[in-house]
Amino acid sequence: MRYQNPTKVSQVTSIGGGPIGGGWTAHFLARGYDVVSYLHDESETRIFHDIIDTAWTSLEALGLADGASRDRLTITTDLEAAVHNAGFIQESAPEILPLKQDLYEKLGDIVPEEVVIASSTSGITMTDIQAKCRTPERTVVGHPFNPPYLLPLVEIVGGKKSSTETVQWAADFYELAGKAPLVMNKEIPGFVATRLQEALWREALHMVANGEATPEQIDSALINGPAPRMAMFGQCMAFHIACGEGGMATNLDQFGPALKLPWTRLEAPELTKELRDAMVNGCNDIAGTRHFTELAAERDRGIVEILKGVKAARTK
Amino acid sequence: MRYQNPTKVSQVTSIGGGPIGGGWTAHFLARGYDVVSYLHDESETRIFHDIIDTAWTSLEALGLADGASRDRLTITTDLEAAVHNAGFIQESAPEILPLKQDLYEKLGDIVPEEVVIASSTSGITMTDIQAKCRTPERTVVGHPFNPPYLLPLVEIVGGKKSSTETVQWAADFYELAGKAPLVMNKEIPGFVATRLQEALWREALHMVANGEATPEQIDSALINGPAPRMAMFGQCMAFHIACGEGGMATNLDQFGPALKLPWTRLEAPELTKELRDAMVNGCNDIAGTRHFTELAAERDRGIVEILKGVKAARTK
Repeated sequence: MRYQNPTKVSQVTSIGGGPIGGGWTAHFLARGYDVVSYLHDESETRIFHDIIDTAWTSLEALGLADGASRDRLTITTDLEAAVHNAGFIQESAPEILPLKQDLYEKLGDIVPEEVVIASSTSGITMTDIQAKCRTPERTVVGHPFNPPYLLPLVEIVGGKKSSTETVQWAADFYELAGKAPLVMNKEIPGFVATRLQEALWREALHMVANGEATPEQIDSALINGPAPRMAMFGQCMAFHIACGEGGMATNLDQFGPALKLPWTRLEAPELTKELRDAMVNGCNDIAGTRHFTELAAERDRGIVEILKGVKAARTK
Repeated sequence: MRYQNPTKVSQVTSIGGGPIGGGWTAHFLARGYDVVSYLHDESETRIFHDIIDTAWTSLEALGLADGASRDRLTITTDLEAAVHNAGFIQESAPEILPLKQDLYEKLGDIVPEEVVIASSTSGITMTDIQAKCRTPERTVVGHPFNPPYLLPLVEIVGGKKSSTETVQWAADFYELAGKAPLVMNKEIPGFVATRLQEALWREALHMVANGEATPEQIDSALINGPAPRMAMFGQCMAFHIACGEGGMATNLDQFGPALKLPWTRLEAPELTKELRDAMVNGCNDIAGTRHFTELAAERDRGIVEILKGVKAARTK
């Protein structure tokens, strides 16, 4: 399949009138695209505009692309008309497998074959969604993080019948459209970000269940502890930088035995040489030529800005 | 024991010349205290000053307290002289149990009994540390988060022989000194923040071990996904706000079954009515009278500021 160059896409079709479909609509409008939004029913229109109103406040604060305008939005309840001139389709229909399978069967026929169709699904694999689609090669998961008009992450993964070209095209397009694409090689439940968040969330539930912490203490611990650091550098690099010259190698070689301690209810994997090296090399690649003192200074500047920003945004 | 009113403390003694002891020293100086820092050996002095140099850049950017000055620092290698006029002692000696036990045996005798001694320990319980101390009632854990001069969290928990009065006094004092105290009722491995972070970290290690994600993908997923939201509102409230009118109740009632899905290797606890209610009530308490639309707007303002702040702090 010869796809259009991602830079040539000027019109995006967003399917779905909920917070995710509305969030995507606002995002693409803010990045200067013409957007056609398909709603299942006209009665959804008012709430849909409310979602975009809310999103627009933040998108303006972050800065709109040249030519971006809410006037470039068309709303329709006619699916064929909605996809007619699309350069890209973002589907955010309800998370019900038979509904999505039927939708992709239809989209597979009415959307021109050189147009990529991405699903916002957070819990269903594309392998399942594309089961009844007659043109499944150009379908792919493009999973955003809530709120989708603000958080840049889009996790991209194909189903068994998706082509590698489709996955790459989607990554290139999302990047151009101002997102932070993460291409996954395997379909795994929860993708990357939700799995990590879910591990933390389950530990939090255990702590509340055992009377070890309250929800307020859990949130306070995160807000005042690991989260600002994580927002700046993630978790691997947070440990890499904290260990100075030795970086991740020191972290694993010195604190490796602590992985056997009951510091959470989640058991750690065996710290094999392969795992150690993958972590160490990964962190060294991210660091590049930067010395840890530069990285630590960057981390600190980031945390200062984050703490100030959070304070400025608080109403109480 | 009649402790001094925390507002009357003017001099703090910080024990330890490493990044934690140095970080605490910088923090207390920035909050306008006289600080006496005990180093094990004079040879540690230069690096100790380097740590404070680094910290000071950020502390100035965040804003110093009235009268705060690095001139108010005294460095000594004489432990008795170091604790002589202290209104509070923050101990950040190496994480070696026999060493800490001997140190607390000595501090227990030479520090006036009406002065609280807090340990920065991240991995040892105060019950173990205070074993040989003859005045253990006034000892407590005051565990900071790295970097201690920037992140506000201090987790406070007593050992078996610590008095409740001591725990409360420490919480009051840290709050006055510009920290975010979190008082725990139980001594559990990893306290609150590290347990949560460790669950996420172990899931990350599993993902790398299984070739499901690289360190770079893990950090990118966090930075562009859950972390900015977590830095603003933690995790319980992130879910509460995302579920609109229904809040945490909707989250648990609707997505409760998803806790059985393999979205991480950590199994969730049984979602009992008690656990459900504890989560729901906890979130409602934090929300207070604020409608979820106000909370969502606050979240969005926070994320906008955080994304801008991170961008401004990046060197590449």
